[in-house]
Amino acid sequence: MADLVNNGHRVKLIHGGDIYSAQEQLSYMENPPEILDFSANINPLGIPEGVRQAIIKSVDKYNAYPDPLCRELIFNLSNFEKVPGPWLLCGNGAADIIYRLVYAKKPNKAMVLAPTFAEYEEALKTVSCQTLHYELKAEKGFQLEETFVQAIQADIDMLFICNPNNPTGQLVPKEMILRIVQRCRALDILCVVDECFNGFLDDPEKYTAKEYLEEFENLFIIKAFTKIYALAGLRLGYCISSNEELLKDLIKAGQPWCVSIVAQIAGIQAMKEKEYLIRTKKLICEERKYLIHSLDSLGISVIASAANYIFVRWPFNTNKPLHEMLFAQGILIRNCDNYYGLSLGYYRICIKKHEDNVALIDALSRVEKQ
Amino acid sequence: MADLVNNGHRVKLIHGGDIYSAQEQLSYMENPPEILDFSANINPLGIPEGVRQAIIKSVDKYNAYPDPLCRELIFNLSNFEKVPGPWLLCGNGAADIIYRLVYAKKPNKAMVLAPTFAEYEEALKTVSCQTLHYELKAEKGFQLEETFVQAIQADIDMLFICNPNNPTGQLVPKEMILRIVQRCRALDILCVVDECFNGFLDDPEKYTAKEYLEEFENLFIIKAFTKIYALAGLRLGYCISSNEELLKDLIKAGQPWCVSIVAQIAGIQAMKEKEYLIRTKKLICEERKYLIHSLDSLGISVIASAANYIFVRWPFNTNKPLHEMLFAQGILIRNCDNYYGLSLGYYRICIKKHEDNVALIDALSRVEKQ
Repeated sequence: MADLVNNGHRVKLIHGGDIYSAQEQLSYMENPPEILDFSANINPLGIPEGVRQAIIKSVDKYNAYPDPLCRELIFNLSNFEKVPGPWLLCGNGAADIIYRLVYAKKPNKAMVLAPTFAEYEEALKTVSCQTLHYELKAEKGFQLEETFVQAIQADIDMLFICNPNNPTGQLVPKEMILRIVQRCRALDILCVVDECFNGFLDDPEKYTAKEYLEEFENLFIIKAFTKIYALAGLRLGYCISSNEELLKDLIKAGQPWCVSIVAQIAGIQAMKEKEYLIRTKKLICEERKYLIHSLDSLGISVIASAANYIFVRWPFNTNKPLHEMLFAQGILIRNCDNYYGLSLGYYRICIKKHEDNVALIDALSRVEKQ
Repeated sequence: MADLVNNGHRVKLIHGGDIYSAQEQLSYMENPPEILDFSANINPLGIPEGVRQAIIKSVDKYNAYPDPLCRELIFNLSNFEKVPGPWLLCGNGAADIIYRLVYAKKPNKAMVLAPTFAEYEEALKTVSCQTLHYELKAEKGFQLEETFVQAIQADIDMLFICNPNNPTGQLVPKEMILRIVQRCRALDILCVVDECFNGFLDDPEKYTAKEYLEEFENLFIIKAFTKIYALAGLRLGYCISSNEELLKDLIKAGQPWCVSIVAQIAGIQAMKEKEYLIRTKKLICEERKYLIHSLDSLGISVIASAANYIFVRWPFNTNKPLHEMLFAQGILIRNCDNYYGLSLGYYRICIKKHEDNVALIDALSRVEKQ
């Protein structure tokens, strides 16, 4: 968000979750408020207790190099995802997988949705790939429509779909993903489906494209432990594809030890935390309802909210933008004006614990609304 | 080392420290010996106690995204290295820095020493760079000679020097590094100096090229917390260069969140562990002497040993290679036959704690010699 020097590089940060810039911006205050971060879509339950314990117990192992093949992790992940081990590859967060894929394939022309997660295009830029934006329509709530399938052009090499889409919270039914993957195969296009937020859905099975992996070697699914297990700070993502040669190319596209030992250990333990996932879904489902209802009461229109975040449009013509007014109260929400295809007034709000959501609604009820 | 399937990919592992393949290979035994790993050059003191405590204390922070700019880490590193913050960039281990550099610069032609650390060439392959090998001479103990300076050709874009060199343990005096960097600047070549093992030297200042950074924008130094602070499993490396534009290009050459929170916290604490570094040097110095003397008594010729590892040649014509005979006793040493420029019989042995070194010498005294 902020443009910073700070004994480091003047680099523009473009994503949510930047509590570090926020802390700096508030550091001039005598008693800066504690920051409540609704800008990163992380499980509000925090790191599962079993994972906390596993991390603490294994500290003495962190001196050794990690297993480059992530053998124990992949063995467990294979059972967890019910896919063969050689279809899996782990990375230093989902973002690492995106960059490795782009470096491995070096596409000339790719297509992304607009708006969508910015790192697809950032990665594509590194190989000078031309990126086409398929603009989702505001009047349709940024929903991907059936006409998209035929709009996929023969001259592209790679297509990125984010399902549910980030930041819009809109879903693509898996039957439509099937038609997209079919068309991509006919046109020799690699179809990347980012399912990083699938685990937060009320019915994940209804939307995952996993069952098409066996038939379609041009399908490449990205997932992560980052959000659903609240392990963003440890970095652990993975991909699934039946194209084993492609995964081998990804291995060669970067360093051998990309997944740290602590991330491997955390991931192995996380998959055992079944009760945590049940509690997560219950919380997200209840709090989503609470937030949507409360936002509606405040006249704030909710566009979509399939996962653990809510995409809204601020309908009031205020002197200051909403995110600035909330930031003055120590609350961070994701200002979406830097997404291709969006402008000031669109916001993404993460679903947090009840008391935090109440604090947000309280803050929202206090800001100027004109 | 081994060629593995294991519910994962059949990928050849080429580095030391692969205790995971070793464990697998021994797993058929009823009571497999505990593995003593001399194949990875990690500080035998293990993770500093202060770092252990800092990791444990901060577990609850790992749910947030890491600071992409590593601000607190860079602030401390800037004081520690006595260089301006904007000259520093951190990565997911030194290997991440190597790949980012290669992706950022996309050299057409590069030169590496032979033998040297294999990841330079592995990274160069990803951008289809032609790699020239400057072959160090066995009869000179693989020492880099002064004639090298004039052998640097005008048509290369990037040169990698590892100082002390891995696996040979040979040093290049900084005055010679200066002549190399000067020639590189005249020929518009980026000179990369990997100083990952500098901290283990008896006199690190005598060999670091740091003082040339201000004058030479074509100098790029790589360092790591991995080895000297025994944090290989956490992944934390960095580079130093006065070419700030180049560092910005490296930032763009990969994902924003490459350095995990746990690595950032561990790094910040590690720099405070001054007494740990003193103990490290004392131990390495004493044990280096012990090992050299003992190896010599066994008729094993030591080639060089500047850092925390000893490069040796096995002089006996045995039925089985040395590393296989030691492995049967649960001891791993680095078989160097897969280094460009080396053949079977060259080994790299890490300096460990006294009792472990005694166990190695004991095992060496038992193996067949002739």
